[in-house]
Amino acid sequence: MSDADRDLRYHVDGDLVPASEATVSVEDRGFAYGDAAFETMRAYGGEPFRWDAHADRLRDTCETLGLDHGIADAELKRRVDETLAANDLADAYVKCSITRGVQPGTLDPRPEVDPTVVVIAKPLPRGGVGGEPVHGGPAALQTTKTRKADDRAIPAAAKTHNYLNGILARLELRVTGADEALMLDPDGHVAEGATSNLFFADGAALRTPSLDGPILPGVTRATVIEVAEEEGIPVEEGTYAPDAVREADEAFLTNSTWEVRPVATVDGIAVDGDGDGVAGPLTTLISRLFDRRIEEKHYDGERL
Amino acid sequence: MSDADRDLRYHVDGDLVPASEATVSVEDRGFAYGDAAFETMRAYGGEPFRWDAHADRLRDTCETLGLDHGIADAELKRRVDETLAANDLADAYVKCSITRGVQPGTLDPRPEVDPTVVVIAKPLPRGGVGGEPVHGGPAALQTTKTRKADDRAIPAAAKTHNYLNGILARLELRVTGADEALMLDPDGHVAEGATSNLFFADGAALRTPSLDGPILPGVTRATVIEVAEEEGIPVEEGTYAPDAVREADEAFLTNSTWEVRPVATVDGIAVDGDGDGVAGPLTTLISRLFDRRIEEKHYDGERL
Repeated sequence: MSDADRDLRYHVDGDLVPASEATVSVEDRGFAYGDAAFETMRAYGGEPFRWDAHADRLRDTCETLGLDHGIADAELKRRVDETLAANDLADAYVKCSITRGVQPGTLDPRPEVDPTVVVIAKPLPRGGVGGEPVHGGPAALQTTKTRKADDRAIPAAAKTHNYLNGILARLELRVTGADEALMLDPDGHVAEGATSNLFFADGAALRTPSLDGPILPGVTRATVIEVAEEEGIPVEEGTYAPDAVREADEAFLTNSTWEVRPVATVDGIAVDGDGDGVAGPLTTLISRLFDRRIEEKHYDGERL
Repeated sequence: MSDADRDLRYHVDGDLVPASEATVSVEDRGFAYGDAAFETMRAYGGEPFRWDAHADRLRDTCETLGLDHGIADAELKRRVDETLAANDLADAYVKCSITRGVQPGTLDPRPEVDPTVVVIAKPLPRGGVGGEPVHGGPAALQTTKTRKADDRAIPAAAKTHNYLNGILARLELRVTGADEALMLDPDGHVAEGATSNLFFADGAALRTPSLDGPILPGVTRATVIEVAEEEGIPVEEGTYAPDAVREADEAFLTNSTWEVRPVATVDGIAVDGDGDGVAGPLTTLISRLFDRRIEEKHYDGERL
């Protein structure tokens, strides 16, 4: 925990506690087996971005896990709001987890659940127009040997505390110093990053791997498709070979924290034209449209 | 936590604490991502069974995770021994976990690790000759739709806190009331149970899926192969279709807690001859040989 985090308060099991005392039992299934659903989101101007979409996906994950926790979306939202208020945060990173709690026995999940709910919040800069990006600049992508699992083994649409697959992919980046993994599906098609969805541009069209593959249905991914289509930019969701990304004119990554993060290189090959680390025109446009969306919805259009 | 567990003491981060106070930070990567290695084992007469084999596998898992924790095997063993002694346990279930601890940032694993070490112990009956089995009797196995992941996605030999795959398989059993999943590899060959290795007998030979597939190299599995071969029973490690198990004369499961657990049915088909739930002759023999091994090594051959 960094010094800055020591003063934060987190929501654990219904109570706000200092971050240093925010703990779960070593027998909590969230710890023992990663048996927990979660969402990460950004709050802008005091409100989580697209709360409903996150609540929907959290519900879907819990359904996949057979985790009938009995907590209403509104109650979860209340705890998120309380956590933001307790920390006096308007612009923040928020993570909300629901675990299957402590149960008797070993691996078998029991139907009766006493869930553990954890909400973490940390300060982030203001978003919207003129906001400072929350990432380390344009990304160096690297294709990893670690593949996404088949959906029959680990359903990609479920966002759980099982993140070994992404961790193994990120470990491979230590050698080259790349920022994010370009992970392929079991058939060798492009899937996604360890914590991000991928878009790339080829001429005037945006392309992104279709949700038919082992892809997390990212909330930012959906928002980008929305703003692009509203602007008349065609978006194709398909199945792509890694070479399509390496040969793209531009590429970018999306997740709730990064929003739209330009890609500078893929396996060392520049995809921003001249490799100067400056985002291409389509990436820049999408990023601006996204920022405007945030500005309108969360800051009353203050900077528009 | 059951009432019986309330009086137990667990080892967390170097200290023995009451089970009710045995916790980890909600920011520990073991909780957030299942980013942790673990071993479960049985202690018989005060000594963990095949500690060296468990320590070796734990080291292998940590190597796969790139988790350089710097804790010597002897120090881990000391904590296991301390936990057993603090609870006055000679015969026990023991679980030892090493997590990557709390780190700054999000998913990226940092090379500098301040690991969290947790040792849990719970009472079990005496093992060895005449010991009471620690399972619910002969198992009903059921082939699941949930498949084992490809090794390129989730290496099966690594025993980590990522247990979603096994949980999803166990969830499928709710419908039929079966005890254990018969999980197939991505190609449809027999792999293992959610928490057990599988053996089956066809005439006089024992067969078990080879470690070339996505199989945990079980310590009990290795011990069973050892005692069988010492007795002159041939053991074949191979690649098998589910039908080979359904049509077997006998089958049994192995793990550290269950030791040798007979299988009564596979997908509703009796594999113990007449389906009376009494283990077949080869299973019974292997189980006795295993018990004798424990009796010799852990109880000075008291009941031999």
